[in-house]
Amino acid sequence: MAVLKVHGNPISSATWRVLACLYEKELDFEFVMVDLRSGEHKKEPFLSLNPFGLVPAFEDGDLKLFESRAITQYIAHTYADKGTPLVIPGKEMATVSVWMEVEAQQYDPAALKLQFELAINPLLGIQTDAAVVEEYEHKLAKVLDVYEARLSQSKYLGGDCFTLADLHHLPTLNYLMPTQVRKIFDARPKVSAWVADISSRPAWCKVLEMIKPK
Amino acid sequence: MAVLKVHGNPISSATWRVLACLYEKELDFEFVMVDLRSGEHKKEPFLSLNPFGLVPAFEDGDLKLFESRAITQYIAHTYADKGTPLVIPGKEMATVSVWMEVEAQQYDPAALKLQFELAINPLLGIQTDAAVVEEYEHKLAKVLDVYEARLSQSKYLGGDCFTLADLHHLPTLNYLMPTQVRKIFDARPKVSAWVADISSRPAWCKVLEMIKPK
Ligand SMILES: N[C@@H](CCC(=O)N[C@@H](CS)C(=O)NCC(=O)O)C(=O)O
Ligand SMILES: N[C@@H](CCC(=O)N[C@@H](CS)C(=O)NCC(=O)O)C(=O)O
Repeated sequence: MAVLKVHGNPISSATWRVLACLYEKELDFEFVMVDLRSGEHKKEPFLSLNPFGLVPAFEDGDLKLFESRAITQYIAHTYADKGTPLVIPGKEMATVSVWMEVEAQQYDPAALKLQFELAINPLLGIQTDAAVVEEYEHKLAKVLDVYEARLSQSKYLGGDCFTLADLHHLPTLNYLMPTQVRKIFDARPKVSAWVADISSRPAWCKVLEMIKPK
Repeated sequence: MAVLKVHGNPISSATWRVLACLYEKELDFEFVMVDLRSGEHKKEPFLSLNPFGLVPAFEDGDLKLFESRAITQYIAHTYADKGTPLVIPGKEMATVSVWMEVEAQQYDPAALKLQFELAINPLLGIQTDAAVVEEYEHKLAKVLDVYEARLSQSKYLGGDCFTLADLHHLPTLNYLMPTQVRKIFDARPKVSAWVADISSRPAWCKVLEMIKPK
């Protein structure tokens, strides 16, 4: 097996998504640090890995991929027999796909906006925009109402087992849970139990250990 | 085979995505009109098909799906042996997946914003915000620079054949091409040829015929 390489940065939530997947699959990989401060990701050779100049990028031998969710899907399907099965064969995969799209189309736009306003901008010395926070908290709450109903029917979003549909949420959850947005999750018992469950998975704890400032 | 049902509306670009896929696959289906004006999509029974109250929703026998890109993936994989192969088996699918994510994560946020400002808001009597248009035209142009380079290497985004990675763009293209945004596509020869090619596919022409106000 070729060495798997993740090009990324420990502050990048999209990079964490790929790391979580690799640890769930119990795969060995090499982490290649991309220096975002010096703009290494906006120059060659990184642009040959991702022409959009964003981390993460991924290599499996000759195959070069980018976009975190495309990378996790590749890993989950290609290494189906290793570690946690993160996708489900057959018709049930269609429902996992629906909830992966929900994460990307409904949850993430709101979560990412709040992540920037409440977790990233303060680090950069940029003032938080209270009106934006209010607007996106409202959007997130509506999404989480649907999650609360869904998680009353099934243990995980895609069905009875943990899949990529759940895993894809971990990075933004990690940025949001220490902020005021936590209350929106806590107000919904099923959502709150699901967050606690998926955040305490051993693979995710390994990601947290790996990205901890040393 | 159970009757396939698409619940949607002829003005909904996300509905068009599913229709394009069904026509490419040469599948028979029933179109169930959802009256957006009366808010039919925000009430039962529609909410049981999509708890987010958005069109389209889809049924294949007992299986109920929503989110247009999850529906197209289900159709392409399940009916792999019919019509146009819109996915590729094996390792090459990973590259198709990357470009499907690019559509959803990089292209669509800019395209959809411009679609609202320049095509939908005018219909609703809402004033177009010139600053927003400028900002998102700039974002779209940067995405299309990457597309121009990609389409210089391969005929389609996912590789040598037309796949879902291309098809997913058709709905927003249809809203944008009659607007001022067309110039951003026209300024890039490979992108412009790709738009002309994918927009003239017989399956897409059937969608246009179907949604034409009668
Ligand atoms: N949709 C992309 C997002 C990638 C992304 O936005 N990466 C951020 C870090 S999380 C980045 O590279 N930012 C650097 C920049 O914007 O210059 C994915 O899921 O991989
Ligand atoms: N990400 C969803 C988007 C669905 C969506 O936004 N549908 C629009 C029409 S294109 C809708 O139902 N709008 C009605 C509303 O917002 O009330 C998909 O791809 O299916």
